Amino acid sequence: RRKPLPTSGELVEGILKGDVTILSRAVTLVESLSHEHQAIAQEVIEKCLPYSGNSRRIGITGVPGAGKSTSIDVFGLHILKDGGKLAVLAIDPSSERTKGSILGDKTRMERLAVHPSAFIRPSPSAGSLGGVARKTRETIVLCEAAGYNNIFVETVGVGQSETAVHSMVDFFLLIQLAGTGDELQGIKRGIMEMADGIVINKADGDNVDRARLAQAQFRSALHLFPPTMSGWIPEVLCYSGYYDLGIAEVWEMIDRYFKFVKDNGYFERKRQEQARYWMYETINEQLRNHFYSNPEVERLLIEKENRVLSNVQSSFTAARDVLDYYFTQK
Amino acid sequence: RRKPLPTSGELVEGILKGDVTILSRAVTLVESLSHEHQAIAQEVIEKCLPYSGNSRRIGITGVPGAGKSTSIDVFGLHILKDGGKLAVLAIDPSSERTKGSILGDKTRMERLAVHPSAFIRPSPSAGSLGGVARKTRETIVLCEAAGYNNIFVETVGVGQSETAVHSMVDFFLLIQLAGTGDELQGIKRGIMEMADGIVINKADGDNVDRARLAQAQFRSALHLFPPTMSGWIPEVLCYSGYYDLGIAEVWEMIDRYFKFVKDNGYFERKRQEQARYWMYETINEQLRNHFYSNPEVERLLIEKENRVLSNVQSSFTAARDVLDYYFTQK
Repeated sequence: RRKPLPTSGELVEGILKGDVTILSRAVTLVESLSHEHQAIAQEVIEKCLPYSGNSRRIGITGVPGAGKSTSIDVFGLHILKDGGKLAVLAIDPSSERTKGSILGDKTRMERLAVHPSAFIRPSPSAGSLGGVARKTRETIVLCEAAGYNNIFVETVGVGQSETAVHSMVDFFLLIQLAGTGDELQGIKRGIMEMADGIVINKADGDNVDRARLAQAQFRSALHLFPPTMSGWIPEVLCYSGYYDLGIAEVWEMIDRYFKFVKDNGYFERKRQEQARYWMYETINEQLRNHFYSNPEVERLLIEKENRVLSNVQSSFTAARDVLDYYFTQK
Repeated sequence: RRKPLPTSGELVEGILKGDVTILSRAVTLVESLSHEHQAIAQEVIEKCLPYSGNSRRIGITGVPGAGKSTSIDVFGLHILKDGGKLAVLAIDPSSERTKGSILGDKTRMERLAVHPSAFIRPSPSAGSLGGVARKTRETIVLCEAAGYNNIFVETVGVGQSETAVHSMVDFFLLIQLAGTGDELQGIKRGIMEMADGIVINKADGDNVDRARLAQAQFRSALHLFPPTMSGWIPEVLCYSGYYDLGIAEVWEMIDRYFKFVKDNGYFERKRQEQARYWMYETINEQLRNHFYSNPEVERLLIEKENRVLSNVQSSFTAARDVLDYYFTQK
């Protein structure tokens, strides 16, 4: 072992002082698979909880190529002008496969990467989505305790991770490009309806007209959607991350949102629902893990799945057979 | 006991002959909570499986007031003109609470209710969504074995049941009304993006212009959505259930869809995915049931939930504590 493990007390003390090195070590323990590390991490989270919660948690999604990193760079600089601190996290369950497509390349956030008030942390390495999401949510608690009053959580908009992000942020921002064709190929259905704001990037130069057209189209499309739970009407704006245009307007919208949901009580209610959600989500994930990691269950599932797919056995009796084995065996 | 229980062999024989009384009895056993009834039901389903699958399974959703029952009545008559048989099922986990809002009132399908080739079955009475959905899916197998080559599954479009329906049908039809305001209040976000077809009802009389406008709006909105998994481009049509206008066009669209997905292989692939989905969904539901129905777990959950909501304990250690109790206790 290179370094002795710090105690949870030392970590908490450092985190509360805003010590970035200690915060990083604590996040590493949160992400670790070792039981010893997890035990310390859980103590640290518990002790940081009373100091957490005081931030704006913002989910940012968009397909690769939408310009997420450049945008996060300018968005981050914009909000840090007024002081405060910013943590940029990511959820990408596939990061091991794709060699860290998200935030792997900090150079794309060149200015934020060297900013003293910004903490950038790539996605925890691959694991189940539930596991990766849980770690990110725990990291939010630590960052908040360390005084980060703005949290960005980034995803790629192509998988299931958006639902996970949506369940841990206050505001969900979707970055789109002008055009109704190929640019949208990558995004997943259902994501548009989660957005509290849609922002169209690359509204610059020759592209301004197309971006304005897309804005009008998205606006009228959103009118057809059912109302949001918060009562907020999602807005559609144009901006250019590269040329730093329209950034203030995007953040005025986000400010308006926070004022709106804090006034009508939705902010607090949603945070409570999210805490409850994560408790039950964790339970359900662990129940599944315990079942699916049983070697005999794994073997039986393959056999049963084949029977189901060849229409020899119904989905329900196949499930029952595997469950019978599992529950009698223990 | 009023009647002796039939054997599974007797039931299967009757079902395969298309005997409606016997089909009804078998469905009642599928819906029963009694272990004895379930044992027979599962045998019947297993024996019917090889005779199932040969139908078009169509999900139909829309908020109360959209005119679902009237529409199903005319849709049903339209397809039965060419022969064949139609089963109309429903998923409404709230049916006990709302006293059977769906299909409870067969009189709204007045012509279908007395049609010799139609079998109408209300939603199984209340239970967990998973349970209700599972029973509906099992009923589909029995209906198909009884020769019903068209299956409608109805829902109200306001809860989570649409995801369940979506996972058991080939085509998902959303009934909408003209207008962008109050009429949509009831529908849930995310449902529009599930639809393979959107049909605007009450396009008659004074309302035709508004319906056409809504059609144009939905069409352009759908262009902004990401492509569907099937490659099919969802269509938007106007019709009038009450005045029997545009019904043929709706079914020509549905016919086109089935030709399209059968040609490109998506039909078969989706059916297989659905069978697999239901196997795992059943397993996960039973794992959860086993856990949450444990009295001491129930008590602990209430206690832990309060600690989580008052920010005294993290969602994750709260979950861990309850799981520790559950797994050591057994």
